[in-house]
Amino acid sequence: MTSWTRGAAAVATLTFDVDAETPILAEGRHYAEHPMVMSHQSYGPDVGVPRILDLLDDMAVPATFFVPGWVAERRPGLAASIVDRGHEVAHHSYSHRAPTSLPPGAERADFVRALDVFAAQGIEIAGHRAAMWGASRETLCLVAEYGLAYDSSLMGDDRPYLVPGAHRPVVELPVHWSLDDWEQYAYLPEPRIGSVIESPDKVERMWRAELDGMRHYRCLFNVCMHPFLTGRPGRMMALRNLIRYAQECGDVTFARCRDVAAWARADAETAVRPLPTYAVDPEVYPR
Amino acid sequence: MTSWTRGAAAVATLTFDVDAETPILAEGRHYAEHPMVMSHQSYGPDVGVPRILDLLDDMAVPATFFVPGWVAERRPGLAASIVDRGHEVAHHSYSHRAPTSLPPGAERADFVRALDVFAAQGIEIAGHRAAMWGASRETLCLVAEYGLAYDSSLMGDDRPYLVPGAHRPVVELPVHWSLDDWEQYAYLPEPRIGSVIESPDKVERMWRAELDGMRHYRCLFNVCMHPFLTGRPGRMMALRNLIRYAQECGDVTFARCRDVAAWARADAETAVRPLPTYAVDPEVYPR
Amino acid sequence: MTSWTRGAAAVATLTFDVDAETPILAEGRHYAEHPMVMSHQSYGPDVGVPRILDLLDDMAVPATFFVPGWVAERRPGLAASIVDRGHEVAHHSYSHRAPTSLPPGAERADFVRALDVFAAQGIEIAGHRAAMWGASRETLCLVAEYGLAYDSSLMGDDRPYLVPGAHRPVVELPVHWSLDDWEQYAYLPEPRIGSVIESPDKVERMWRAELDGMRHYRCLFNVCMHPFLTGRPGRMMALRNLIRYAQECGDVTFARCRDVAAWARADAETAVRPLPTYAVDPEVYPR
Amino acid sequence: MTSWTRGAAAVATLTFDVDAETPILAEGRHYAEHPMVMSHQSYGPDVGVPRILDLLDDMAVPATFFVPGWVAERRPGLAASIVDRGHEVAHHSYSHRAPTSLPPGAERADFVRALDVFAAQGIEIAGHRAAMWGASRETLCLVAEYGLAYDSSLMGDDRPYLVPGAHRPVVELPVHWSLDDWEQYAYLPEPRIGSVIESPDKVERMWRAELDGMRHYRCLFNVCMHPFLTGRPGRMMALRNLIRYAQECGDVTFARCRDVAAWARADAETAVRPLPTYAVDPEVYPR
Repeated sequence: MTSWTRGAAAVATLTFDVDAETPILAEGRHYAEHPMVMSHQSYGPDVGVPRILDLLDDMAVPATFFVPGWVAERRPGLAASIVDRGHEVAHHSYSHRAPTSLPPGAERADFVRALDVFAAQGIEIAGHRAAMWGASRETLCLVAEYGLAYDSSLMGDDRPYLVPGAHRPVVELPVHWSLDDWEQYAYLPEPRIGSVIESPDKVERMWRAELDGMRHYRCLFNVCMHPFLTGRPGRMMALRNLIRYAQECGDVTFARCRDVAAWARADAETAVRPLPTYAVDPEVYPR
Repeated sequence: MTSWTRGAAAVATLTFDVDAETPILAEGRHYAEHPMVMSHQSYGPDVGVPRILDLLDDMAVPATFFVPGWVAERRPGLAASIVDRGHEVAHHSYSHRAPTSLPPGAERADFVRALDVFAAQGIEIAGHRAAMWGASRETLCLVAEYGLAYDSSLMGDDRPYLVPGAHRPVVELPVHWSLDDWEQYAYLPEPRIGSVIESPDKVERMWRAELDGMRHYRCLFNVCMHPFLTGRPGRMMALRNLIRYAQECGDVTFARCRDVAAWARADAETAVRPLPTYAVDPEVYPR
Repeated sequence: MTSWTRGAAAVATLTFDVDAETPILAEGRHYAEHPMVMSHQSYGPDVGVPRILDLLDDMAVPATFFVPGWVAERRPGLAASIVDRGHEVAHHSYSHRAPTSLPPGAERADFVRALDVFAAQGIEIAGHRAAMWGASRETLCLVAEYGLAYDSSLMGDDRPYLVPGAHRPVVELPVHWSLDDWEQYAYLPEPRIGSVIESPDKVERMWRAELDGMRHYRCLFNVCMHPFLTGRPGRMMALRNLIRYAQECGDVTFARCRDVAAWARADAETAVRPLPTYAVDPEVYPR
Repeated sequence: MTSWTRGAAAVATLTFDVDAETPILAEGRHYAEHPMVMSHQSYGPDVGVPRILDLLDDMAVPATFFVPGWVAERRPGLAASIVDRGHEVAHHSYSHRAPTSLPPGAERADFVRALDVFAAQGIEIAGHRAAMWGASRETLCLVAEYGLAYDSSLMGDDRPYLVPGAHRPVVELPVHWSLDDWEQYAYLPEPRIGSVIESPDKVERMWRAELDGMRHYRCLFNVCMHPFLTGRPGRMMALRNLIRYAQECGDVTFARCRDVAAWARADAETAVRPLPTYAVDPEVYPR
């Protein structure tokens, strides 16, 4: 039997969430009239994405881009420009509102609307990442119901695992806050986002430490970046260094999420982790 | 007479608070329906604890695991799996709500309920740590009344000290925010936890500096970690480095909390620090 | 044709926002009766600006000072003392309230009032930066209508770009949070500003990384500093190191903003980026 | 004429604000019933101060301890134990509430009450620091009216300066957030204090950078520490390193605040900086 790592010590999935304006509009649609804030976000697809695509070419590594349907719709050539360079485009909701924050029924509508956008653009979708990683219980059902292979929003492990349900089990490619550039780089005074802005050398050091740990423990280095953040010049250099370091290790495989999902599904030792249910006693937890 | 350090320059107690879902449910039981948040927490017992147990074996050091009763109850084999490897399991409340936040009477019920869980599992308990370190005056009484030897929630010193009361004095093994991984690593957007996520190399550097200071001043290096935080690969490597550094110092003894408590109680020079009372004038402090 | 970089790998615009008391008074005019807070701010023009002017002389580099009209009015010799040393003084609103926070009509009055102050002092103005970088759509119109050459408040790129409108296109010299000393150094408990205060060596390292990235990608290193923050002794040494590093690179040109604006306007390859409009569906973004 | 620096490149005043429980009780007197929080604070006088006094002896440097009257009253031997070691005890309010937060008249009562405590203990007082550095206009008047020589709460310069008033001018020994250990080390979840806890090596690096800058610019290195924070083992080692570094520089003089105040008053070139008044137009600053 072949392991999901295909012989590597760790598998690296470089993922880019091309959120553009959506996380800000989800905070309040009046921000559409704040040119600085909007320009801060549109820098992502306009400047960051082409720069990232060039870097990936330079380093000869594949990546996965999670794109909200709203963003793909507004920029019709964006998703194709990514796929054409050999990378994966995946489902990242339509509006970038967290499923756990939506009224009943709204998640399905949002989920399907994004699928429709990608279908209309001829972009084939194999996986999903919830906005804000805020997956609901329904999220995993929708992923399976619509025939996607994987989700990438949960944190129950640091290796791929299977989440069983009514349909085919979903492969979960787990994420983590420590492998997200948002907590390191994001800053806006209004809407209030972030705290101190970190230096790229700190982020490179932290992610390299996690990669080394993951090589030791045989994990999925599933790093999440945002073109409006990591697309900045100094941060791109740090990403370049990180990729080069991983390549020099000689035991790290870079892959698209869909490929890792397939490898994990084919590995009989992949852990099965059902979504747990909790009968929470209101006397113990009154809030 | 033998000193509580038993000849070492500093004594190190590696402690792991296996909180799992409890601190989040204490913030609001509706978080039980947020799969990402719950998976972030269950990673602790599911992935972190086994990894930590292996590391402790590798390094041949003992440790103490503070486990909320709710967590031990939900995962019946967890406490035994820790004790079976030679480590200590200690009382960490039932529900992980801070005693200072509870209505009158509720603390005793919560305290006893956890003791009952451990008794039913055949786990012998010698010490206690308040949830959120939020001990009330009653906490120390309960610890003594139920025959436990020590508490580990206060910050009145950086060496063990005795807190006298109606029953046998309690040995306090003091903690401190700077030796807690929570303030360095924890992050969740909702419930809002943490600020910037620090790199393991910073935490290792900070804790090594504190250990060196404690070797100079002959203190208790009582470090508090959480499996859902420190259990991540890169952070485990930093912990491994820290333990190795302490071992190479040659003057640091690793011990379980219960052992340190016994050594401190047997040391006639252990400081006695009664809980102070404050007659606070509302004219001076009107709020 | 000549490129806007005039042959350099990157162009550096050192900019100083001489806000003095204005950002605090904008938070609440009662702070005028808080001597510590006011002294924290007046340190900028009183101690920081002379020190900065001396450093710029020492290093033989030009800079641009964005001064609110209120500050120039209160300290009549300030703007002239800057221009006399060969630097540029530019428009930074009258009151340092963000345009996006003002009631209709108020922005124009504030904008013109600052122009009047500078005109009365014989200071010729070529460019503008919105308070808090909070430009409105009207801001760019006012900049063009009043014949200024450039704005420096948006983040749509990391090279100069043109924003077309009813009048002559405005050259935008984009800024970014990561090149602002505020997020690194600012701290006040009330009004609540900042989080952790960073060390100058971190800021120097972060900005050097961005400069290196910008030399790679041929960008505008448009760094924003505040004399009440960067004017402190240790931070001045870090700024001195940064300037020296840039000079030693041999491929970085220092320039005033007005010069860069002219070079960008003369470069036919300068990108044109209209302010985008957004028809935001309230069903998608209900907040 | 003799300069206030007495020939040194920089003068260092090590100051310790022995706040103990007061800043927390000022947030709410119910915290008196939170043993962990109180122990976190009492660590300052109980463990930190003796350790600091020993370090100062070891390094043979003088220091100044700002003690709230409430703290001196509760611990009758504390102030004398400091003075007996050759250090200065100075006025730090009675209750540690910021003057700017007090109702009319309350500041004078609080100010005098502290003076009475010190008089009753035979502690001679020469200077003052406002709680939270929150001096009001009246603060400077009280300092002069009661015959104290200096205040140390404002930030209008980084060298001593004179603040004229109805009585003898007050020497201001300015402070700054970047030379305060609070923003680097303080953390409590409730009351909510601090953000990320920094490593001592960062603080040492930052303060060393500021000291080097101050040696360049001939300033007062007026560092503010709190025994409950800096008294921790690892932080004490960093302070030791910092003092040793300053001593090795060979051009830094350590002095008590009262000595620096006298030197500054005797220096005819000491700047005079009246507290500025602001006629703030409510149309410009409506909040």
